[in-house]
Amino acid sequence: MKYETIRLDGETLILLDQRKLPEKIEFFEAEDYQEVAFAISDMVVRGAPAIGATGAYGVYLAALEYDDLSENEFLNQMKEAIEYLNKARPTAVNLSWATKRMFNIIKKNSGQNRKALIRLLEQEANNIAREDVEINKTMAKHGNKIVPMSANILTHCNTGALATVDYGTALGVIREAHRNNKNIHVYADETRPRLQGARLTAFELVEENIPATLIADSVAATLIRDGRIDLILVGADRIAANGDTANKIGTYMLSELARVHSVPFYVVAPRSTVDYNLDHGDLIEIEERSSDEVKKIGSEVIAPDGIRVYNPAFDITPAENITGIITEYGIVKPPFVSGLRDIKDRRRS
Amino acid sequence: MKYETIRLDGETLILLDQRKLPEKIEFFEAEDYQEVAFAISDMVVRGAPAIGATGAYGVYLAALEYDDLSENEFLNQMKEAIEYLNKARPTAVNLSWATKRMFNIIKKNSGQNRKALIRLLEQEANNIAREDVEINKTMAKHGNKIVPMSANILTHCNTGALATVDYGTALGVIREAHRNNKNIHVYADETRPRLQGARLTAFELVEENIPATLIADSVAATLIRDGRIDLILVGADRIAANGDTANKIGTYMLSELARVHSVPFYVVAPRSTVDYNLDHGDLIEIEERSSDEVKKIGSEVIAPDGIRVYNPAFDITPAENITGIITEYGIVKPPFVSGLRDIKDRRRS
Repeated sequence: MKYETIRLDGETLILLDQRKLPEKIEFFEAEDYQEVAFAISDMVVRGAPAIGATGAYGVYLAALEYDDLSENEFLNQMKEAIEYLNKARPTAVNLSWATKRMFNIIKKNSGQNRKALIRLLEQEANNIAREDVEINKTMAKHGNKIVPMSANILTHCNTGALATVDYGTALGVIREAHRNNKNIHVYADETRPRLQGARLTAFELVEENIPATLIADSVAATLIRDGRIDLILVGADRIAANGDTANKIGTYMLSELARVHSVPFYVVAPRSTVDYNLDHGDLIEIEERSSDEVKKIGSEVIAPDGIRVYNPAFDITPAENITGIITEYGIVKPPFVSGLRDIKDRRRS
Repeated sequence: MKYETIRLDGETLILLDQRKLPEKIEFFEAEDYQEVAFAISDMVVRGAPAIGATGAYGVYLAALEYDDLSENEFLNQMKEAIEYLNKARPTAVNLSWATKRMFNIIKKNSGQNRKALIRLLEQEANNIAREDVEINKTMAKHGNKIVPMSANILTHCNTGALATVDYGTALGVIREAHRNNKNIHVYADETRPRLQGARLTAFELVEENIPATLIADSVAATLIRDGRIDLILVGADRIAANGDTANKIGTYMLSELARVHSVPFYVVAPRSTVDYNLDHGDLIEIEERSSDEVKKIGSEVIAPDGIRVYNPAFDITPAENITGIITEYGIVKPPFVSGLRDIKDRRRS
């Protein structure tokens, strides 16, 4: 993408401020890990892979902050910082996956010179970011195989360059199909309440000149029923070991309609999104967000005072509604328990 | 309700301006039938029964305007005015049903003194409005029978006092259950893009002190799956002779989830919503509205320039997804073809 979602500039993490898009291109500068955690929880940056990389840089900024502490104190503060970062958003597992990778660097190099450790942490965060782009491009190539030469593709939320370090997961597959000159047209769900589809996916689709149409979330069901959707591609925030998938609220609804009307429904996510510790989706914690996300849009008040709101950020799509999970190790097909287990320790060739 | 949705004051039709709710209580004054048509198409007033009554008053205002024309000229102008009003919104059949009732008064009294005819037209419009409230209260009593003593009820769009002359259709049943001290809690879909659930239904529920929770439209599917919804009640804009029902976009999605998870799904609508001329739902014209409804909320721009939008105002729920249709003649159960035919010419006792 023309703009960088996440970029380290010296000791400052620079994030494209996704709260302001598409109206304004502004950047948010995080100088310490608390500001990084704020950026994640307030959704300056969002999307499971993007918050993973952002969290990794947050750990690096924390290490810079605690640079001159004794070994023990440093370790304690770093543990606290990682816990603080992990809590910024509870559902996407990529965040704790990335901070854990950073913590492993600290553990493996506990005796090292602090300056050297800090350089290693910077490298690891950069690795996580760089690998994310590579993984996305690999997933996109695998995913492109199941995109027909001519297709209407439905997608939900934003899973593009903005949801990752670059290229995207589900939107990465769409990007790849378009670059391979397939005749595709995208229906983008606006994705209430945060409107990532309208604000971010539509923005990326227009930037990339991919033919696309924006719809209210409730329009998708009728399009699916009427045979106007050939393929559904979504991302994921956490995938249980059996394939049950937590993704943006509204995904479950699409999966059920897809099942009823026999439309292929694929999840596109890196292996880091799989939480092998959870047997099934009921065990995934679902983040509930502020009622203001539903009651206000910008400065516009759209609901009366005194009405309660239930605002879960995600829902669970059961494995049986999923046609396949597109990962950097290829397309995992049902039964997912064995399929996901098979890729657990695989290395990319 | 505390505020009147539709009120004739001399030669001015006064409408509660639903575009401004819940932030501002303002009234829109229509002085002629063109202004009435504008109020309908711009959704100052909406809801199938409400636009029926509003259209009837529009015919009355047209008659006042053409008061001094010759018999032939009067008849031609009135036909034109009715056609103009009918086109204000194409899907809800109540509009053409009401203007047709008004035209029948003109036909039956063609020889009459013009002043007398105009009084008859005023009376007929008042009758349509008064009957709407009676019908709603009767439907509410019938509907209350299927509401459990304790229930979580899901509803979509606004079908309350604001969608009718007073009391409401689906929300009328909810009102009745609440007034009968049933332990009900309502989940109100916000209903994108026009947000009638957030702006209007939530407003009515707060006014009436009915326990309620506002949700984004895509949350409903998960609530239904998780057994947190006991009953779904929706209105209708047009019902085909076989029971297929056009209602606010998003209704079909709910009906499909309800079918899959065996949750009772009822349509609440007066007989005037049944279009006996249409054999099935595919024949119902679906209004497409401006892309700005999706791309902007108030002054807030939420989508980039250059993105296309598909914005159908309604969808079709197939008869097989409907548990029953609650009318002023009782609850019609499948098979709807015969059930609806049975009430076609019935008189209310």
